[in-house]
Amino acid sequence: MTLSKQDDRPIGIFDSGVGGLSVLGKLAAAFPNENFIYLGDTARLPYGSKSAKTIRNYSEQILRFLSQKNVKAFVVACNTASSQISEHHWNNLPLYTVIEPGALTAHKKSSNRKIGVIGTKAAINSAAYTKALLKLDPAVKIFSQSCPLLVPLAEEGLDLDPLTDQFIERYLKKLLAEKIDTLILGCTHYPLLMGSLRRICGDKINLIESGDALAEQMKIDLNSQKWLPRADAKGKTVLLSTDYSPLFDQIAQSTLTHYTSVEIVDLQTFAGAGS
Amino acid sequence: MTLSKQDDRPIGIFDSGVGGLSVLGKLAAAFPNENFIYLGDTARLPYGSKSAKTIRNYSEQILRFLSQKNVKAFVVACNTASSQISEHHWNNLPLYTVIEPGALTAHKKSSNRKIGVIGTKAAINSAAYTKALLKLDPAVKIFSQSCPLLVPLAEEGLDLDPLTDQFIERYLKKLLAEKIDTLILGCTHYPLLMGSLRRICGDKINLIESGDALAEQMKIDLNSQKWLPRADAKGKTVLLSTDYSPLFDQIAQSTLTHYTSVEIVDLQTFAGAGS
Repeated sequence: MTLSKQDDRPIGIFDSGVGGLSVLGKLAAAFPNENFIYLGDTARLPYGSKSAKTIRNYSEQILRFLSQKNVKAFVVACNTASSQISEHHWNNLPLYTVIEPGALTAHKKSSNRKIGVIGTKAAINSAAYTKALLKLDPAVKIFSQSCPLLVPLAEEGLDLDPLTDQFIERYLKKLLAEKIDTLILGCTHYPLLMGSLRRICGDKINLIESGDALAEQMKIDLNSQKWLPRADAKGKTVLLSTDYSPLFDQIAQSTLTHYTSVEIVDLQTFAGAGS
Repeated sequence: MTLSKQDDRPIGIFDSGVGGLSVLGKLAAAFPNENFIYLGDTARLPYGSKSAKTIRNYSEQILRFLSQKNVKAFVVACNTASSQISEHHWNNLPLYTVIEPGALTAHKKSSNRKIGVIGTKAAINSAAYTKALLKLDPAVKIFSQSCPLLVPLAEEGLDLDPLTDQFIERYLKKLLAEKIDTLILGCTHYPLLMGSLRRICGDKINLIESGDALAEQMKIDLNSQKWLPRADAKGKTVLLSTDYSPLFDQIAQSTLTHYTSVEIVDLQTFAGAGS
C-alpha cells in the first residue's frame, strides 16, 4: 500500500503513558513536516504488568479511537503493546510497532551476535524480540531479562541514582556475564535511565533505543516510496492523555520542542469501547 | 442505620489490586461467619499515581458494580481510593474506608503524639490521614511522606532485600529524625514489606496496618449493635479481578484460608460504567 502525496493527515501514535513521548520526540525530529496525534493511556498505565489479553484489548481500543481521528498511519510507541500486535496494517493503513525496527538495528550493530533484551514482564514473556531476531538470523544468541522496577525508577526521575545503578547491575548481571555486545532497551521508559544504563554497561555495549530504530526504519520506507511526507508547512503535534498527570506534562516539555496543550480524553465513554 | 439480624448478604470489598487481600484476610479472620465478595481492579492498577478524579471515578464504578451483587456493606480496602471517599454510606448501606480506623488506632497507640504517615502520592497529596488525625486531636504532630517505589518493591516480593531497606531508609529519614513513635502504613501493600520496615524502624515504633485497624473498628460497631453478623454457617469468600494476574492468585493463596477460584470480570462492559 502507498500513501498519497501531500497527505497532511496526522500520524497516530500511542503508548501506555509517558514512555512513548521519547519515540514521538525522535519521529517529530526526523519528520519535521508531519503532523502527529499522540495518546498516552495514563488512566490505565502501566501495561507491562498486565495480561496479554488486556494489553491487546486496550491497544485495539486506542487504535479504534485514533482511527476516528482521521490518521494516515499508526505507531505503537510502547514495547509492551507492540509485543501483542503482529499486524502491519490496521484499517488498511500502515501500522508500525517498535519491535521489528529495534531487532533490525540491534542485529546490524552487533558484531558477536550476542544480543541482550530488557523489558517489562509482559514484553519479555511475549518473546517478541526473540522471535523477530531469530527471523533475521537463526544463529543469533539472545539473552532476555524482565526489569519490573525500571519503569517506576524512571518515573521517579532516578537516573544516575546509586540505587538505580544497583538494580540495573542486578538485572544485567547474567547478560553482561554472557558478553553481549548489544542491548535492546525494550521499553520506551528506559532511555530515561540512560545515565545509569551507560554507567553499568560501559562504553563498549550498543544500547538500542526504540525511537531511533523506528525513525530509521520509517526513513527507509520513505526512501523506498512507501511513505510520503508533506513537503510544505511545519508539522503540528497534538497530545492527548486519558488522565491528568503532572509527569506527562513535565516529560512532554522536556522531550518535545512544540505541541498543543495536553487534552484529557475518556476512553471509557468512547463509543468504540469494549472488546 | 442498623443491619437486620442473620443477614447473609456478603460484604463487598475492593482494592486496586492485591494490597486489599491483606485487609480481607484480617476481616475474614475477625468475622468467620461473614460472606465476602472482593474485587481487585488489576486491569487498571495502580491507583496511587493517578489523579484524584480518575481514582474517584474508578471507585464509584466499582461501588456501583458491588451494589448489583446485593452486598450489605462496603469496605474500601485501598488507602488511595479511601482518600477520595468521605462518605460513610453508599446506596444507604454502611461504607468503611481504611483512613479513620487507621488514624484512630495510631492516635491511641502514640505516646508522644508524633505520628508518621507513609503512602502513595495520591494518598499523601489528599492529606486524608492528616485531616482524620487532626479531627481526633488538633495537638498531634504529623509527618507525611509519599513512597512511590514501595508498591513495585512489594509486588516484586523484595521484603528484606538490601535495596528495599535502602529505599525505606531514604523515605523515612526525616520522619525518624522527628522522633515519631507511631507510623501509619497508609497503603495496603506495605505490610508485604514488614520485615524491611521493622528493620529500619526498630522495635520501638508502632507500625499501624489498615487491616488490623479496620477489623478493630468493625468489631466496635458490632458490639454497639451497629453491625450484626450471622451466627450460623461458615462464611464464603468470592474473589473477582478485572485482569488475569499470577500475583493476585499467589497472594490470595498465601493470605486467605479459603475462597472460591478467582473470576475475571470486565468493568468496561459493565452497564454501570462511565462517570
